[in-house]
Amino acid sequence: MIRIGIDMMGGDYAPLEAIKGVAAFFEGNTNDVHCVLIGNEHVLKNHLLDHSIPEMAYSIVHAPEIIEMHEHPTKALKEKQQSSIAIGFHLLASGKIDGFISAGNTGAMMVGALFSIKAIEGVIRPTIGAYIPREDGSLGLLLDVGLNADCKPENINQFAVLGSLFAKHILKIENPRVGLVNLGEEEGKGNLLAQAAYPLLKENQQIQFIGNIEGRDILVNKADVMVCEGFTGNVVLKLAESIYDLVKRRNIKDEHFERFNFESYGGVPVLGVSKPVIIGHGISQATAFKNMINIACRMMETNLTGKIHDSFTETIQP
Amino acid sequence: MIRIGIDMMGGDYAPLEAIKGVAAFFEGNTNDVHCVLIGNEHVLKNHLLDHSIPEMAYSIVHAPEIIEMHEHPTKALKEKQQSSIAIGFHLLASGKIDGFISAGNTGAMMVGALFSIKAIEGVIRPTIGAYIPREDGSLGLLLDVGLNADCKPENINQFAVLGSLFAKHILKIENPRVGLVNLGEEEGKGNLLAQAAYPLLKENQQIQFIGNIEGRDILVNKADVMVCEGFTGNVVLKLAESIYDLVKRRNIKDEHFERFNFESYGGVPVLGVSKPVIIGHGISQATAFKNMINIACRMMETNLTGKIHDSFTETIQP
Repeated sequence: MIRIGIDMMGGDYAPLEAIKGVAAFFEGNTNDVHCVLIGNEHVLKNHLLDHSIPEMAYSIVHAPEIIEMHEHPTKALKEKQQSSIAIGFHLLASGKIDGFISAGNTGAMMVGALFSIKAIEGVIRPTIGAYIPREDGSLGLLLDVGLNADCKPENINQFAVLGSLFAKHILKIENPRVGLVNLGEEEGKGNLLAQAAYPLLKENQQIQFIGNIEGRDILVNKADVMVCEGFTGNVVLKLAESIYDLVKRRNIKDEHFERFNFESYGGVPVLGVSKPVIIGHGISQATAFKNMINIACRMMETNLTGKIHDSFTETIQP
Repeated sequence: MIRIGIDMMGGDYAPLEAIKGVAAFFEGNTNDVHCVLIGNEHVLKNHLLDHSIPEMAYSIVHAPEIIEMHEHPTKALKEKQQSSIAIGFHLLASGKIDGFISAGNTGAMMVGALFSIKAIEGVIRPTIGAYIPREDGSLGLLLDVGLNADCKPENINQFAVLGSLFAKHILKIENPRVGLVNLGEEEGKGNLLAQAAYPLLKENQQIQFIGNIEGRDILVNKADVMVCEGFTGNVVLKLAESIYDLVKRRNIKDEHFERFNFESYGGVPVLGVSKPVIIGHGISQATAFKNMINIACRMMETNLTGKIHDSFTETIQP
């Protein structure tokens, strides 16, 4: 039985879209998954009357407080111990749930992930990735996209391993190709960080490094895992997200550009922490919640955190 | 009389498209501009027979050598003194031409600009910008886009001044709004560089600083001048360029996305050097060459380098 905790009070459309998402998830999956709905019990129960989710499939954990979107992450987590995010991480840390999902305050989710369940041994800095849609219908992974604004070469090298494991086990890409986001193709190009990261990636036996990729390669299927520090990654991700809005404003209907609607992917996983944590977009709606539950389940089924643990233990051993 | 030097041997379609561009330029502008065509005299004369450029409007300076696209910039410039780029910078440095344009080896153009004509006094690092098309038909400016992969906060502060002067005098934007490309909107966000650049920009009396802008703001009309280090800027520019190819592949016809064809803008100016230098895209065709000549002329007419000089002299004075 996989137990997924969901912050029902997080995101712009809480709790209704979260409930719809849980309902949609159980329409397709009835076995072996139990959702722990964390939020205001009274509000949740009222809404749940309108949805036919099997009673055995969920339980409610009351959380009277909410961390609002604008609140300071560390301060809010400390002061609002009865908030849905704080309770979620408490349940996760104490083993009462196996994974935790929220579309609420991103900063609070990151702080919670880093300080309540900790990084996997050997992982210097956990990271968050984002999906990049490709024309063949597949997804690539870009990371880091904002958790680590300043990086060392070793961090980027580890992002490559974390991203490769996620791509292999969750995105089901055999032998994912890793590209270093850079300003030129040739070895030796780049800022000091990229120049120093290149040889580490090249020598890394755990990944299939294909060299530098440029900005023009990000939206095409050149590398499956694209690594950079979180500053560039964040700017690139938000620029890519804005293409969808631009295409909509221009009244363009196109199947591929539809897939730039990042909302539909649900959230991005925090990679390198000891349990599955998924951070959703604030604008997440039912499909996004459903997809986030699916990803959390797949992370559990494939034992991704265990595989990451093994991978980093191997690295450490002589 | 403005004398513009053009490297006729640079770019993928040299010299034919360069000649067509010069011809197109003189169809609209016959007064006060003289083009110095630098390249293989024999080849140029043959091609010129097919075009009715007024004889008084141009002269040819013979350059028997060519710096190829793949050559090492510094080495090539040193060894190929008779190349069109080396001769172009020699003419520029000695005052025989007022501005220099090439769609050839970008690195050689940068090295030439930095070492033959030097930076304007007070400018720590010259920069190159790129145009960003906006839905209202106007252009924004993103800089640095690759000349300075590693930057200090002071560099970014100077890019803001250089970009603002270019936006005001060449793009004709009164009081250009300067945005710092960053991963969040609030003051205090960012990597160490952006965090340190913010207060400098905020206190800078020579610019109109509007604060941080995010990736999603780059393609919309939020800031006229968008500043960042050259690593992020280069990745963003090449990603933006790739949108045009993607839209073409999807068979989408749209007036705005047509303007993502960066080739049509001609080249990007090197800002902060003592004379107008414009670096063209390798794939530049006739329109691009025509536009580059136009921009070089406008830089001369508005005395942009003089205005930059005055601006940086003011900064130095107590």
